[in-house]
Order: sequence, then structure tokens, then C-alpha cells
Amino acid sequence: MKLRLRTLALAMAAAGAAGAMGVAAVASTTSAEPIQPIVRTPPADRQMVELGKKLFFDPRLSRSGFISCNSCHNLSMGGTDNVRSSIGHHWAQGPINAPTVLNASFNVAQFWDGRAADLKAQAGGPIANPGEMGFSHEMAVDVLRSIPQYVDEFTRVYKKAPLDIEQVTQAIAEFEKTLVTPNSRFDQWLQGDTKALSAQELAGYQLFKGSGCVACHNGAAVGGGSFQKMGLVSPFKSSSSSLGRYEVTKQEADKYYFKVPTLRNIELTYPYFHDGSAATLHDAVDVMGQVQLGRRFTADENDKIVAFLKTLTGDQPAIVLPVLPPSGDKTPRPQPFN
Amino acid sequence: MKLRLRTLALAMAAAGAAGAMGVAAVASTTSAEPIQPIVRTPPADRQMVELGKKLFFDPRLSRSGFISCNSCHNLSMGGTDNVRSSIGHHWAQGPINAPTVLNASFNVAQFWDGRAADLKAQAGGPIANPGEMGFSHEMAVDVLRSIPQYVDEFTRVYKKAPLDIEQVTQAIAEFEKTLVTPNSRFDQWLQGDTKALSAQELAGYQLFKGSGCVACHNGAAVGGGSFQKMGLVSPFKSSSSSLGRYEVTKQEADKYYFKVPTLRNIELTYPYFHDGSAATLHDAVDVMGQVQLGRRFTADENDKIVAFLKTLTGDQPAIVLPVLPPSGDKTPRPQPFN
Repeated sequence: MKLRLRTLALAMAAAGAAGAMGVAAVASTTSAEPIQPIVRTPPADRQMVELGKKLFFDPRLSRSGFISCNSCHNLSMGGTDNVRSSIGHHWAQGPINAPTVLNASFNVAQFWDGRAADLKAQAGGPIANPGEMGFSHEMAVDVLRSIPQYVDEFTRVYKKAPLDIEQVTQAIAEFEKTLVTPNSRFDQWLQGDTKALSAQELAGYQLFKGSGCVACHNGAAVGGGSFQKMGLVSPFKSSSSSLGRYEVTKQEADKYYFKVPTLRNIELTYPYFHDGSAATLHDAVDVMGQVQLGRRFTADENDKIVAFLKTLTGDQPAIVLPVLPPSGDKTPRPQPFN
Repeated sequence: MKLRLRTLALAMAAAGAAGAMGVAAVASTTSAEPIQPIVRTPPADRQMVELGKKLFFDPRLSRSGFISCNSCHNLSMGGTDNVRSSIGHHWAQGPINAPTVLNASFNVAQFWDGRAADLKAQAGGPIANPGEMGFSHEMAVDVLRSIPQYVDEFTRVYKKAPLDIEQVTQAIAEFEKTLVTPNSRFDQWLQGDTKALSAQELAGYQLFKGSGCVACHNGAAVGGGSFQKMGLVSPFKSSSSSLGRYEVTKQEADKYYFKVPTLRNIELTYPYFHDGSAATLHDAVDVMGQVQLGRRFTADENDKIVAFLKTLTGDQPAIVLPVLPPSGDKTPRPQPFN
């Protein structure tokens, strides 16, 4: 136990780690690496998770009846939509790249600018955003309250009627907390399987640590623990108008600060950066080297780092598609075209 | 065996049954009812089905990278999108209601106007339709050929490279053939469980048979076996400009003929009719009575028929969401906004 705690302290120190990282995840390794294996913990309330899964996949939380959480955080595609910026209500172009929902519970806060403290607070955002799901909390709740099987299920889970938006967002958040991706090859290596990585991948990891990437991309989620300036060493030219953390704090010093994204499953979550401007991992590593570290990686170095990054793809959540309860006769119908 | 064949012949006669109905499904019942239990048969090629499932869920078959087969044939929602007409590329409004993909292999042909002979022929349609997925077969194949894991999987399944659109549509069709929904309460009743239906539901079934609905809605899929005129007894006023079967045959006599939709899982596949104009089952039964049968069902009759129709909801396919292979560095990127 003493050894374990000491190892934990070392790991936390090495990582410059924020409290948002799962302590359980850290404690499970005996290594002092700045990255810890990610661990899936059993949900506290399975019924709530099942309800949240339905809501996550239910496009009736949007005005059109067409867009669900899964539309932009597609669990077939690393919890993202793999486009530069998302498509919203009436084909609105989103202002920012959709971050992955996988391992999002490890983030210090949600959204690129951290404007939501946690997953529950985040879940309400897109529903009411005119350029995303284009609905309102009131209308979404009205729809759900009109669906008999949902009413029954909410009552079973919460023992409190009528259902409300707090229950809706809590259930979605509880489902999202289960979207953790353990057992990547890198985690296998962290846990002692020395053959889990090739020489090239291991060289990539050494470069990743040695050149400073790990200063921000650390902890169980290999990121997600802090806000950092995009364009730390040289300006990052972007088509996005987002000012990042400044939008929340209105502090001049927070301009262009964004939440450091997780690198877990990064092979699946292209394109990269808050503006989705890097189409490939090679592009992303190249730009990061220049604007964050003031360094031009050689092609060989770039290849090695990319090879390492691809070892961070973990077991994707095994999602059995929910069967959604049918609308009742009085359920307000979606309005996709007006 | 003799008895079985005679029963089969009776059932076929009672149903006015088309060849499209699965004979296996009919033979499994010993009843002479005009509806037969629906039976899920094991797929011929599981690897092809798995590949087809990936393709069914892959939005990279659309120009935007946002729309997959599952967008409009959502397997969480009875294989439909539950809107009057579908949302396509750039939020295009579709001309017709998306029919369910569930049990679609039992249809005499595909699309409301039957312009595709089978599921394989159907699968290519939406990909290249400018108002649906907005892509082309060539571009879709280019995308798939650039994704290393797909190339491997197609080669494993087809033993023939390079992959082509025929392979793509065949795999999707083979997946769709697995989307069969057995074990509805009505099927349990057909198979001898006399307690599976309530008195009201059974009365609804008797009305369904006695008033003529069953003339078109029969067989294992309770429909899907023939084309019939929408507005047989009195004109059906529609906002849709579709002329139905006429669009295919250009025969005057085929105007306003549409494929009879399956009533399997009808509780889940609202809104109803080719124009999606009936929001509820009560509406649909009312209109059908008037325009097809020249009859006004009383509220009590309507309730009974609706109660019966809801017994046709079968076990929904248990779909484990596929994990899609990531795009390669050279994969053409989706173009949602230009």
C-alpha cells in the first residue's frame, strides 16, 4: 500500500496532473510514467445508464427529429463525426470541431472552452443550441413526457415524477461515463507487457515525452486535464473565430486557450484541433511541433510519434443499439422543414 | 407432409399470396390464417453480413460524411426516421416517406414504386441520389478503397479485388436480410398461444380480416406482396407528387399504385402512407377505411384494429453498433458545406 501511494504521488507529479484524472486509474499501475492506463469502472446505476443510452440515441431531442447526441458524437467513429465542424439543425455549420465523447468524464471540464463543468451540464447545451439540435429544454421535456414508455422508465429510475431536464441530462451523463476505452496496446505496455509496442512505437513514445508533448497530454486520458494556449510558441492561424477559454472568463490572458484534447483513440477522432484543420495525424503532429513546441519534427520523428499515437486506440464500448420507445398519439411531431 | 402442403396451399390461397413471401415462413404454421409467422433464418455468409452492417452505418457513403443508411432507416426506430419525408444532403426534403428496412426482404420489390427489384438494387439508390446521400457510386467506392481495413475486409469476404459497388450493395443487402422481427405477440398467437392476444386485440384481428384489410396486408410481412391503388374507392388527397408505380411502368393504369407496406412493427414506423400524412395509427386506420374500403370505422372498431396492429411488433434486431475502420491519410474528406 505504501509503495502504491508513493507510485501514485510520483505519477501525479510527473504528470503535473489535475484532480480531474481518475485516481483509480492511476493507482492501478506501478509505473511512474506520466500516462496511466485507463480503467472502466462499473456504473453506479445500470438502469439510469440504459435510459441515458436511449436518450443519447434519440433524435426526438432535436427539433427536426433527425439529430441525436450520437449524430455528432458517433460511437461508431470514436465518439466524433469526423468532419471539421458539425452539421446542425437545417444543415447549420458548427463553429468548432466536435470533441470525442469517449473518456470525456476524465476532462477537467466540457466543451473546448470548458464552459460546462461536467458531462451533465454539457448534455443540455446542444439540445437548446439553435445551430445544433435546435430545440429547447422545455420542448424536449414535453416530447419525452408524452411518450408512455419513457414516462414509465424515468419514474422507475428516478422515483420522482414528472420527468425534467435535470433527469434527462443526468441520465445522458451517466451513460457517457461508461464510454471508456481500456486495453489499448499502450496500456498493455504500461501494465507490463513489453511486447505490446514495436520499437518504432516505443521510440515515438520517447520522443513524445522527450520533446514536451507530455507536458499537456498526460494522465489517464492523455490530455483533458488543463487549458493551454493554442499557438504557444508561434501563432496558430485558424479559420475558427473561437477565442477559447476567454469566451468563458473574459480574461484577456485566456484568449486562444483551449482544453487540451484527450489523445485516447486519436486515430479515430480526425480531423484534429478545435477548428478541425489538421486532416491527418501527420499534419497534427507537425503543427503541434511548430506552434506549441517551436520544433520541426523530421519525417522520421513524425512517423514515430504517429505510430505511438495509434497505440492509444482502446477497446471501443460495445453498444447494443437501443430500441426507442415509440411516440404516443399526442407526442409533438418533429418539424424538420419549418 | 401431405397435411403440411395442403395447409400451405390453403394459406397461400387465403392470402392471395405473392411469391415474394417466404415459403419457409408459411410452412412453419399449421394455421390457415392469411398471415403467417415471420421467421428469422441464419445468414448465408456471416462475414458479409458484418461488412454490410458497417456499410449500413457508415456516413462516408454520403458526400457530407453525415448521412448513413441508418440515418433514415434507423434501427432504433423500427427501421425508419419517423418523419413525414426524409432529410437528405444539405437538408433536402425528400419526396416520400422512408419505408422501413425491417423485414424488407419479404417485399415483392423495393421503394414505394417498386423500381428496385431487390435489396441489392435498392441499396445503390440513396447513395447516388442528390437529395439523399448526395454522392456517386464512383466516389463512394473511391472512399472505401482508400480505407485500409475496408480493403482487407472486402478482400476477405469476396476474394476478389478491387472492391466495387456491386460488392458494396450486396453486403448491405445481406445485412438487411437479417433485419427480421419474429416473435410478435400476434405470431405467438398464430403459433398456438391462445393467451397471447387480448379479447380486444383478437376482435381487432377479426375486423381486420372481415372488413378486407387483409386482402392486401397478408403473408408473413402483413403486406409487401403487391402494388395497390392508393385511393381505390375514393381519391386520396396527398401533398406528395408521386405517381407511384406509374413512374416505373409509364402505364396509365399504374397511376397512384404503391407497394402495399408491411404492417410488421407498424407501431414503430409512424407516420404512415407514402406521403407520411397519417401521424397516428388511428388516423391511418380511419383513412384506409375510407379510401380503400369505402367504410367509416367507428371509434370502437378503430380502437380494436389499432390494438391488433400493435401486436405485430416483433423482437427488434439486436444490433451491436459497428466500429468503423478509420479513414486513411489519403481518404477523400467529406464535403458537408460545399
